[in-house]
Amino acid sequence: MKDETLKARIDSVTIVAKPVPAARSAARRLARHLASRRVKITFDPATARAIGRRGDGREPGRGRPADLYIVLGGDGTILGVARAIGRNPRPILGINLGGLGFLTEAGLEDAPAVLDEIFAGHGTLERRLALDVSLVRSGRVTLRQSVLNDVVITKSALARIIDLGVAIDRQFVTTYRADGLIIATPTGSTAYSLSAGGPIIHPIMAALVIAPICPHTLSLRPLVVPDTSVVEITLRTDESEVYLTLDGQVGLPLRAKDRVRVRRSAQPVLMVRARRTTYFDVLRRKLHWGQR
Amino acid sequence: MKDETLKARIDSVTIVAKPVPAARSAARRLARHLASRRVKITFDPATARAIGRRGDGREPGRGRPADLYIVLGGDGTILGVARAIGRNPRPILGINLGGLGFLTEAGLEDAPAVLDEIFAGHGTLERRLALDVSLVRSGRVTLRQSVLNDVVITKSALARIIDLGVAIDRQFVTTYRADGLIIATPTGSTAYSLSAGGPIIHPIMAALVIAPICPHTLSLRPLVVPDTSVVEITLRTDESEVYLTLDGQVGLPLRAKDRVRVRRSAQPVLMVRARRTTYFDVLRRKLHWGQR
Amino acid sequence: MKDETLKARIDSVTIVAKPVPAARSAARRLARHLASRRVKITFDPATARAIGRRGDGREPGRGRPADLYIVLGGDGTILGVARAIGRNPRPILGINLGGLGFLTEAGLEDAPAVLDEIFAGHGTLERRLALDVSLVRSGRVTLRQSVLNDVVITKSALARIIDLGVAIDRQFVTTYRADGLIIATPTGSTAYSLSAGGPIIHPIMAALVIAPICPHTLSLRPLVVPDTSVVEITLRTDESEVYLTLDGQVGLPLRAKDRVRVRRSAQPVLMVRARRTTYFDVLRRKLHWGQR
Amino acid sequence: MKDETLKARIDSVTIVAKPVPAARSAARRLARHLASRRVKITFDPATARAIGRRGDGREPGRGRPADLYIVLGGDGTILGVARAIGRNPRPILGINLGGLGFLTEAGLEDAPAVLDEIFAGHGTLERRLALDVSLVRSGRVTLRQSVLNDVVITKSALARIIDLGVAIDRQFVTTYRADGLIIATPTGSTAYSLSAGGPIIHPIMAALVIAPICPHTLSLRPLVVPDTSVVEITLRTDESEVYLTLDGQVGLPLRAKDRVRVRRSAQPVLMVRARRTTYFDVLRRKLHWGQR
Repeated sequence: MKDETLKARIDSVTIVAKPVPAARSAARRLARHLASRRVKITFDPATARAIGRRGDGREPGRGRPADLYIVLGGDGTILGVARAIGRNPRPILGINLGGLGFLTEAGLEDAPAVLDEIFAGHGTLERRLALDVSLVRSGRVTLRQSVLNDVVITKSALARIIDLGVAIDRQFVTTYRADGLIIATPTGSTAYSLSAGGPIIHPIMAALVIAPICPHTLSLRPLVVPDTSVVEITLRTDESEVYLTLDGQVGLPLRAKDRVRVRRSAQPVLMVRARRTTYFDVLRRKLHWGQR
Repeated sequence: MKDETLKARIDSVTIVAKPVPAARSAARRLARHLASRRVKITFDPATARAIGRRGDGREPGRGRPADLYIVLGGDGTILGVARAIGRNPRPILGINLGGLGFLTEAGLEDAPAVLDEIFAGHGTLERRLALDVSLVRSGRVTLRQSVLNDVVITKSALARIIDLGVAIDRQFVTTYRADGLIIATPTGSTAYSLSAGGPIIHPIMAALVIAPICPHTLSLRPLVVPDTSVVEITLRTDESEVYLTLDGQVGLPLRAKDRVRVRRSAQPVLMVRARRTTYFDVLRRKLHWGQR
Repeated sequence: MKDETLKARIDSVTIVAKPVPAARSAARRLARHLASRRVKITFDPATARAIGRRGDGREPGRGRPADLYIVLGGDGTILGVARAIGRNPRPILGINLGGLGFLTEAGLEDAPAVLDEIFAGHGTLERRLALDVSLVRSGRVTLRQSVLNDVVITKSALARIIDLGVAIDRQFVTTYRADGLIIATPTGSTAYSLSAGGPIIHPIMAALVIAPICPHTLSLRPLVVPDTSVVEITLRTDESEVYLTLDGQVGLPLRAKDRVRVRRSAQPVLMVRARRTTYFDVLRRKLHWGQR
Repeated sequence: MKDETLKARIDSVTIVAKPVPAARSAARRLARHLASRRVKITFDPATARAIGRRGDGREPGRGRPADLYIVLGGDGTILGVARAIGRNPRPILGINLGGLGFLTEAGLEDAPAVLDEIFAGHGTLERRLALDVSLVRSGRVTLRQSVLNDVVITKSALARIIDLGVAIDRQFVTTYRADGLIIATPTGSTAYSLSAGGPIIHPIMAALVIAPICPHTLSLRPLVVPDTSVVEITLRTDESEVYLTLDGQVGLPLRAKDRVRVRRSAQPVLMVRARRTTYFDVLRRKLHWGQR
């Protein structure tokens, strides 16, 4: 499957660590590991402060972008960095603090060797689909944000079942009577959508999955559509306890007739891969497929 | 499958109508239909007021119970009457305002004929399992209620995935990492539990179903246990947005370490059946099984 | 949950080993372990021959039954012994050769200690529901057999989708248009039925589960009914490639209009339990519930 | 979503009717309807014989291809014509004899109006992905065929559960322990794969779905991969009763170590659309999504 090659010459690196001790000490170690290379190293401000390199702190997405972002943490930390970098996608290398992740490429112990491979030109880039989400209220766009995993509309525990009308490219699909609805990217297909019964979508696919949460109509099934689709979801229920959640991070109350519009983002997220493990290796281990 | 016969001589009837015009005019018609029989007819207070029979108003569960409760409305109205009657179960005949219900026995048009059959001694009683739910907080029972459909613990849209430890008869079952958990009676097995992937349990069974909502662990499956089981669910997550919902009606915020204890209620709910349709007839029509 | 106590005084034991070296050498070791107790030990003929105790060979189900059958092997071996013992159920202790089983109570290494507990009177009996299956062809019963796991009707790979009409206690349920249908006991609920999407039924329940295999109608769901139900399945398709399989062992070709009748067997299977692990312990380990 | 326009000038039409009276009389009516247009009309040989136009019989796929194939029948008849046309894809218009189909564009009553629209230049073409399947035995390709719906490997009713190793682009995916495995095109995603729990894939997507049938490992989920994937399935079980089925039509016995290789066909199937109904209209009606 197609990947693009990573820039041959990496001149600047920004290291972002999850605010936990293990990530921060790893940030220090990796900076030391890279010291012999002629590369400018910066950190996100919190990490810089925490490891005593205050002068090297720089917010991802502000100022001149680095050639490579090294993110120490889980999938959540990477989602945050991807959002911060925003409009101008840059290569991200995810380093997991423990276990495997769908977005991380290596663990702490492999990180130095993986970095050496990448600096030796053996890294590749995988473009991950991101989505642009707009909330249209009374005809006006009141929120615009991009997501890498999923757009989720759910009722609260107290609300009754809700009706969500869905149209794709202005064609009516159906009205989902359910606890909620998930629109996931391939990257997000192994997150919440999977728990709701959605399929696994290979990360390089140009696809969206639309998966209902606890649908009232038993014959409703997850639907996979091209990423060129413009998906519009209208809240048909007059229920005050319905929320829009983006990559699991924002919870915005919705009102009746609100429309949530989802389309492919012009900017993908660029994940650096070192080809130590395949996507299927990660699937097998994370989902315990090997076990009987 | 075993049923018990309904009392041969019905001397008093209480009619409870859902607060909508169709139900109230039907209440009036049914009262007229029963007028020729020597039976004392009362109404719930709101219906009595609405149809101008204020003097005949009587709250179900207060005073001397009627021999038969006729409930005009959907499954929700019946659940409310069953709860109100409470400790001293009495026969309930459910009359649906439109379509079929899992608890209602007849529609508006069939209601007079069905009543005639019942007064002619052709009715039977079906005992439906009810559950007693207690909420134990800091070692003290802070809530006690009975349900006919289900006990649901769910996180709000804003909360992260929660951990619910489950023990049955003090034996550890597992920790469910999920959006929530449903403990349903056979009656409730065709309600929310079905949307969450639970099986259909025949209503006369002495069984509970434990169904996770969007579980994180993909190999978790709904579990059916005897109704003699004492099921105890402990909220293991320190998350402020978790709620306990009983028959879809009460939404009580839970705290970390709260324990929800579920056991069979000593009082079943007694549904009157006239054997016009079988349970499977209702299943087929409600779930569209016949259609290709 | 209710169990009955095992007979206090065990005078005779029959050991049945799966025809593999590990089981046979374990049979010899266990016989030696029991030698000091005043108990008569016999073996099934094949095991007796294999371990050089030809004179002690005795077919389970022939002659005077033993007080305890020790079965060394997997769930399949136990199913075979249960069938052989047949009409006159006797306590069976299952010893697994490796890993855990839903019917086995201990592994090879625990077997001596578990036997000591049982001889010390600490064992209990768990009654497992068995089913009687009859095949009715042109009005005559042409096959009668009992099963402990499941009755499966499936089309072959070459056949088109089939129609199976199901009635319970002569009430029409529905016509399943599917690859096939499984009627499982609680014991069988963790076998094939689980792969087909059926729920897990606690082994002491008086219940059957009816689970369609790849149903054409998407709203069909597994159905749990009381074990007092008489389930009758009629093959409605004129398709030559449909088979009846009983506990995964017999594959009998069915013809159009054949009826398969399933009801509770008068004889349960009696499994000996030593209470070292709970049913839920086995579930968690076999289904990998603990893992994230 | 992208479609290509149908050729402006249609000079020749071949009508293929399912061998049932309704289809044949419709073939005659449509031929009459087209008589006024300057278009050469032929039939498949069996239809030609049946409607007394023997001289106009012509096998699809032999001789000069028609500009348009009108197929009267269900999805199965269309699959047959698509296979017969083979290497040199031509536009196919499917006319359903009753109800809706996923491949048919109109019913009998709409057929004349739909044809008028198409001849007026309002038709479009939808390219449906087809797959090339090869069976590799002992290193040699022993079968090669193309499919529009699905490639299915299943065990017979009598066989034990089988192991199917899957690799994509030579990367190991997992070993499926299951009753079988389905590799479906988007067109086939609403056929057998849907019954096995697969998602619905929009027909214009460049995707394959890999769906296990009754998997033994509960955490296995359907997998959607790009249509550029080369999927190779190896039968790892030494079981004589395993079959390869292509579009539900061929049942070929497989042997241990046989490899089934699936890749995108160079030739898509070209379905003519008149835009009377959207794909989602068909989904809603076929899957009864509108009903509560």
